[in-house]
Amino acid sequence: MSDTAALGFGLGLATTNSNGEIIEVYYPQPEIYPARSLTDAVMSVCGLKTGSNYCVELNSELQQQLVQALRECDQAATADLLERLAAGPQLVIICLLDCDSPPASVAEAYLKLHLLSHRLAKPNSLNLEGLFGVLVNIAWTNQGAIDLIDLPGRQLEARLQYLSLEIMSVDKFPRMTSYVVPTGVRIAHTARVRLGAYLGEGTTIMHEGFVNFNAGTEGPAMIEGRISAGVMVGANSDLGGGCSTMGTLSGGGRELISVGRNCLIGANAGIGFPLADGCIIEAGLYVTAGTKVRLLDANGELQKTVKAKELGGQKNLLYRRNSLSGAVECMPLKTTSQLNQDLHSHN
Amino acid sequence: MSDTAALGFGLGLATTNSNGEIIEVYYPQPEIYPARSLTDAVMSVCGLKTGSNYCVELNSELQQQLVQALRECDQAATADLLERLAAGPQLVIICLLDCDSPPASVAEAYLKLHLLSHRLAKPNSLNLEGLFGVLVNIAWTNQGAIDLIDLPGRQLEARLQYLSLEIMSVDKFPRMTSYVVPTGVRIAHTARVRLGAYLGEGTTIMHEGFVNFNAGTEGPAMIEGRISAGVMVGANSDLGGGCSTMGTLSGGGRELISVGRNCLIGANAGIGFPLADGCIIEAGLYVTAGTKVRLLDANGELQKTVKAKELGGQKNLLYRRNSLSGAVECMPLKTTSQLNQDLHSHN
Amino acid sequence: MSDTAALGFGLGLATTNSNGEIIEVYYPQPEIYPARSLTDAVMSVCGLKTGSNYCVELNSELQQQLVQALRECDQAATADLLERLAAGPQLVIICLLDCDSPPASVAEAYLKLHLLSHRLAKPNSLNLEGLFGVLVNIAWTNQGAIDLIDLPGRQLEARLQYLSLEIMSVDKFPRMTSYVVPTGVRIAHTARVRLGAYLGEGTTIMHEGFVNFNAGTEGPAMIEGRISAGVMVGANSDLGGGCSTMGTLSGGGRELISVGRNCLIGANAGIGFPLADGCIIEAGLYVTAGTKVRLLDANGELQKTVKAKELGGQKNLLYRRNSLSGAVECMPLKTTSQLNQDLHSHN
Repeated sequence: MSDTAALGFGLGLATTNSNGEIIEVYYPQPEIYPARSLTDAVMSVCGLKTGSNYCVELNSELQQQLVQALRECDQAATADLLERLAAGPQLVIICLLDCDSPPASVAEAYLKLHLLSHRLAKPNSLNLEGLFGVLVNIAWTNQGAIDLIDLPGRQLEARLQYLSLEIMSVDKFPRMTSYVVPTGVRIAHTARVRLGAYLGEGTTIMHEGFVNFNAGTEGPAMIEGRISAGVMVGANSDLGGGCSTMGTLSGGGRELISVGRNCLIGANAGIGFPLADGCIIEAGLYVTAGTKVRLLDANGELQKTVKAKELGGQKNLLYRRNSLSGAVECMPLKTTSQLNQDLHSHN
Repeated sequence: MSDTAALGFGLGLATTNSNGEIIEVYYPQPEIYPARSLTDAVMSVCGLKTGSNYCVELNSELQQQLVQALRECDQAATADLLERLAAGPQLVIICLLDCDSPPASVAEAYLKLHLLSHRLAKPNSLNLEGLFGVLVNIAWTNQGAIDLIDLPGRQLEARLQYLSLEIMSVDKFPRMTSYVVPTGVRIAHTARVRLGAYLGEGTTIMHEGFVNFNAGTEGPAMIEGRISAGVMVGANSDLGGGCSTMGTLSGGGRELISVGRNCLIGANAGIGFPLADGCIIEAGLYVTAGTKVRLLDANGELQKTVKAKELGGQKNLLYRRNSLSGAVECMPLKTTSQLNQDLHSHN
Repeated sequence: MSDTAALGFGLGLATTNSNGEIIEVYYPQPEIYPARSLTDAVMSVCGLKTGSNYCVELNSELQQQLVQALRECDQAATADLLERLAAGPQLVIICLLDCDSPPASVAEAYLKLHLLSHRLAKPNSLNLEGLFGVLVNIAWTNQGAIDLIDLPGRQLEARLQYLSLEIMSVDKFPRMTSYVVPTGVRIAHTARVRLGAYLGEGTTIMHEGFVNFNAGTEGPAMIEGRISAGVMVGANSDLGGGCSTMGTLSGGGRELISVGRNCLIGANAGIGFPLADGCIIEAGLYVTAGTKVRLLDANGELQKTVKAKELGGQKNLLYRRNSLSGAVECMPLKTTSQLNQDLHSHN
């Protein structure tokens, strides 16, 4: 028997709406592949069976039993966290993901998004099917998450009391930083990184950068462009200001895009195909999967004309538009792009 | 005689500066074409005549008289709102727009912006001439709207009390969501939608999306690009990340731009001419009104070379730059763009 | 002997972390080239010598002595400010920059950034070498600046108390407007202007605009694009939505970019070379330093083909991509771009 039987586990604080439905969950210390002893204790106390995913609201009796059971199986850190959460007035829940089925509840969906942003699971490794249908559209305010149905009344009430009810976002996804700030990153503008983003150590997201859920960076990176859902950027790559990576959710194609290591995508450029290690896209050039490209050799001689998607595997290429002929060309690079160490070594 | 005589009416809470001047107004329930009985009651109580626009500050005597008059003419909802507003300590005003003249006061300007964002008036249907001269440049903060002249003192005072005075914006236009969140929308980053935007049901504004005042969407739409002042986007269209619609306020031309239904403007693309239904602009391509375009038939044969603005009425065209010849081409499309239902059906 | 001996001076309120280290400083009234009498008083009270830069934490004894010394040498405004700062509970410091050496402390770095944003020093006129190594990566929140090490605990604590700890940014640079809002500007979204930006009177930064530290505008300007570190934009220029100016920090070249007066850079366009007065870059066109450009005369005849950087000094040129041939061309302009006065005259 394996020591880890389940995919994920989280103790969370949940926000409910006026109908008592959970609309978002904060898991301070989510776990991937939790220890068997932990899940056994949880399942025993809560009366759960293997093979399903569970979200259980913990009343004070269950909380006490679970703290005791966790201490008995040497899960002190989890027991401590539970005691801390239980001391507050809020709803405490556990979420146990026994298998990687499509998220069936807000609690499951938020746990998976937490696992990504805590760097416990890589983008595209978790089943997120049907996510948009599970998540609730919420007004994210300086007074916490508010149901849209309650919003007009709350706004008028706040005004009458000279209070400022600020709505930062009306969306199904919250900002990542309201839940976790992973180590070694800078995020110049937190509104542009969704919960579920995966930011590798040494990543800087500048003001024009954006990272969707289930997307991110492997390691050190300078991101001033947009990383669409599903897109992963390799270590030591640089996405220039306003550049675009084509997503699969809306308007883009069906093939998953990625960016290799040591790549540079210039400002206002974009890609619609997987870019191999060490490649450079010239500023302002958008290369889609179907763009016909003139492949040149090191001497500038035409080798052949191919669609960009057929070049997806070839490393160390420079893509540019010849400014005299107007043709999109690509040619071998002799040197590769380097990140500015000064900007990243002190994250 | 018509039952509706006036253009608009609003009961509002006003913020004043240290000189007692109104700098912004919040109208919880603005009305377009208010009932004759309502405007008659207001005009009678406040001593107004037809043919002009009015902003009246309501003292407690006027408030009581108006509540009574409204109840007598069966305007219970407005009477209830007035009672609620009057219970607070703030300045309560009425604004009555009897005709659509250029806004002459902050109260009139804000009422027109509210009518747009409440979907009671379409963009380009209201007279907004001279709007910039009427609106006041304000610091929008977590302590409410602050006059710029008072700002340095307030900032120092806040610091000395360990309070954080956050300035979100220094602008003449506030965020729409501080006044109204229309039904059935998502706005991933509220800082990018100004009061006066018109967002149709089913619209999603992503982080890179932007909607100016007097501009917006007719119905379901995925907006990851910028909708400039005066621009209206038809239903079921998709504006890709960072795409641009040329405005008439600054740097653009004089012709009003629009986007038809079922259009797709690719990421980092842009238009400077009205785009007809069912058209696609390739990612990264900016087509201005004066761009010369090679119009191809379904077989790829050149029909003629025309300026883009002459193609404004033609539906179901694909605009792209030939990546080998560098020429901008357009050609008939067989299938049209479809919004991702999963992203919009749960707004 | 000169009446001004030092480069800069500031009285500030400092935030410290749990180790007592200064992580940010707010200088309400920073001074450039402070009067000799002021610096003499400061040096005498604090026991400093010329030739170095100093940051001194003022205990109450030093505060009293300094107030008295400042009054004796007719520096009443500074004495008044010190009294006001000293009345609060926070750490009060003085920072004296006797010479323009690389910033050696957070206090020095913040004073230089303040001098820029208060329009007391122009971009590229101050020594900022090694700035990234001196500044501390901080969570900028609605509860003030928080050390990253303390953040997870603070987030959990806030949640347990139903408080919303909002993190606006995790960065080495704060928003400019948290420290100063210079006169005569609009900034539609303050998150996009860093402390250290220099915004000339009459500047409007729209939602898509961005200004890095040590960069900015000389005078009236409409900025809907990105001004990278080191880049200065001349008066009466217009940067269109999403346009890019290539920086020297990351991904760009080594040459410092600038924009002349009366220039227009179209939406989604970009430059990688210094643009002379009165030039226009067509929307969507990115011209890098190495872009080969066909220089045409007023009759459209080819004069020569040159790299864009060789055209850096030539005024009143239009840069565009010929939409039929695909070639980048530039040609003399007869009229120059004009800012929309309505948008700027009321800032």
